[in-house]
Amino acid sequence: MSVVRRAAIVGVGQTEFSKASGRSELQLACEAVRAAIADAGLQPSDVDGLVTFVQDTNDELGVMRGVGIPLVRWTSRTPFGGGGASATIEHAAAVVASGAADVVVVYRAFNERSGHRFGQPGAQVSAPIMNLHMPFGLDTPAKMYSLWFQRYMHEYGLTNEDFGRYSVVARKHAAVNPNAWFFGKPITLADHQASRWIVEPILRLFDCCQESDGGVAIVVTTPERARDCAQAPVVVSAATQGNTMTGEVLFNYYHDDITTFPEADFCAAQLYGDAGLSPADIDVAMIYENFSPVVFYQLEAYGFCGRGEAKDFIADGQIEVGGATPVNTNGGLLGEAYIHGMNNLLEGVRQLRGQSYNQVADAQHVLVAAGRSAVILERG
Amino acid sequence: MSVVRRAAIVGVGQTEFSKASGRSELQLACEAVRAAIADAGLQPSDVDGLVTFVQDTNDELGVMRGVGIPLVRWTSRTPFGGGGASATIEHAAAVVASGAADVVVVYRAFNERSGHRFGQPGAQVSAPIMNLHMPFGLDTPAKMYSLWFQRYMHEYGLTNEDFGRYSVVARKHAAVNPNAWFFGKPITLADHQASRWIVEPILRLFDCCQESDGGVAIVVTTPERARDCAQAPVVVSAATQGNTMTGEVLFNYYHDDITTFPEADFCAAQLYGDAGLSPADIDVAMIYENFSPVVFYQLEAYGFCGRGEAKDFIADGQIEVGGATPVNTNGGLLGEAYIHGMNNLLEGVRQLRGQSYNQVADAQHVLVAAGRSAVILERG
Repeated sequence: MSVVRRAAIVGVGQTEFSKASGRSELQLACEAVRAAIADAGLQPSDVDGLVTFVQDTNDELGVMRGVGIPLVRWTSRTPFGGGGASATIEHAAAVVASGAADVVVVYRAFNERSGHRFGQPGAQVSAPIMNLHMPFGLDTPAKMYSLWFQRYMHEYGLTNEDFGRYSVVARKHAAVNPNAWFFGKPITLADHQASRWIVEPILRLFDCCQESDGGVAIVVTTPERARDCAQAPVVVSAATQGNTMTGEVLFNYYHDDITTFPEADFCAAQLYGDAGLSPADIDVAMIYENFSPVVFYQLEAYGFCGRGEAKDFIADGQIEVGGATPVNTNGGLLGEAYIHGMNNLLEGVRQLRGQSYNQVADAQHVLVAAGRSAVILERG
Repeated sequence: MSVVRRAAIVGVGQTEFSKASGRSELQLACEAVRAAIADAGLQPSDVDGLVTFVQDTNDELGVMRGVGIPLVRWTSRTPFGGGGASATIEHAAAVVASGAADVVVVYRAFNERSGHRFGQPGAQVSAPIMNLHMPFGLDTPAKMYSLWFQRYMHEYGLTNEDFGRYSVVARKHAAVNPNAWFFGKPITLADHQASRWIVEPILRLFDCCQESDGGVAIVVTTPERARDCAQAPVVVSAATQGNTMTGEVLFNYYHDDITTFPEADFCAAQLYGDAGLSPADIDVAMIYENFSPVVFYQLEAYGFCGRGEAKDFIADGQIEVGGATPVNTNGGLLGEAYIHGMNNLLEGVRQLRGQSYNQVADAQHVLVAAGRSAVILERG
């Protein structure tokens, strides 16, 4: 059992998403946190818990001073970068469910384009296993992941064009979202195929997520307290991480079957079981995609289509608004921004509030899957 | 309200504490984790949560593989170094209380003497505020802290000899603890006064904690499940962090009154209130002391004596076994080892199991205070 329907998201906030914010990461964090607290109709003094990423440079004490939060009874951080994005909500939900704190703010802010760019060669230094792969030229995430993707392509007969069909949908969703970097800039499959190779024959430029500057924040409290907040509450149906012994950060080569995503398989079983839901109950799926193929694995892991069928599911229009499972209605990390996956959580909340720019009618349940962590959110 | 009596410590494990372990930090972590799981009478496959420090170099996935833990639903890390030591137990307690995982292992392992030594000039790079202090020569924790201590000395009329009286007790306790680096090596006040100045006229060598290599681990589960484990359970009475807006990592200069320790004041009020206990109920106090004066502030914050009275409380023998509040019965971080404060949690558990080398008769409640985080533990 995980943390089931014992916490609610009552506020979200963000800065603009850009390529050069022109201000410090701490400034971005504080702006987002303040916006989220205001969105909830709360005061900084109501906050007594803070959750962020291990990688976040914004010290909790700096955020407290910048925002005006007097006292914090809980701090925690999630490891594993973007794979831990949904784990921030698991943290916050466990905190308020256990009573360790009452109002938790999750934040993530960085200048990931104008400052430290994760996608550059050698920029990933946190995983100790990196030293084993560097000598073989695996010095960027695009290259590291591509070997995993290539096996999937081989097994199920995909070409880069199949990945392009996802990218076209992401850009279609982004095109009508004013928060998105690619607002007003949809692409065709021909545009995708004309973008330059990043890792031939696997990934083109338009298969890669943005590099973005920006900050986001999310306020979580108990369902009881949520009823007194300014916004309609979004309840955390269930939340989990799925760290497996054969898994590795950035390198998914050690699983017995590398055409699957065992971390996502585990999260799916845990969440559906705990929440008493099935894939058919999910109205919108927000799926972490540093690279477009990762959507394919997760569509299959969460049971929206069968193994090897993501290609056809996407080609059939099933991930667009009006399809069986609309995916990344903000444009995702390819189309909206790359705030380490956290902006997908904000879009999940907006869908359940009826505030998305690609609103799915009467959305009741949203999956936010981030590889090795995932949550299901529902209308409160 | 914090997490009150909804979690229990059922296993503890450690490596030897040394100055040169001769093996990797990951090896130390895995040895300690395996020992703790075995102590609880559990199997690695029972574990589904892992908690450590932000600063720990041991990747959760590496620990899973090294120990043989197949799947982990929860990972979290505490910021703030040793100040977050007791926060690891807050994390674990919230996790099992909320249902986010059933069996959580907390670990911390490093080669802090033979590898990266925190006490060396410039070794502390994590706090952004460091840049403001470096130009004034505050380049080691001993120097950073000493300005804080000096105000306390001035206000209450202490000399370094008063701090020495604490060190003598710590070394007395360590002298009969075979786990301690200073096993069999008690000191007199004259020895203390003959040790070299580190920061004159505030700290001598024997006021400074060890630099140690080693690993420790602690297994936490629900009180219900604890009843089926191998050891008598140690219940987490209450657990909290106390991060204040005017606080800072390593620099306690920004509080309104720098003769006090507001983070500890907050933790004390929260824990006593939540657990329904008072200072008189605490049979043993394990108090984080990177430097001996920190004990003085915390004795006062937790109400074992009045403001400015720690000097006399210690001189009167009240912190020795047989005194009003025996302190650091393992020898503390000065006498046993510096495993970032985590070894004090193990001693707390041993006291409540009746397994200490300086056993306090019929100990029912132990405080484990680590500056900005603290727990009270009790016999299950």
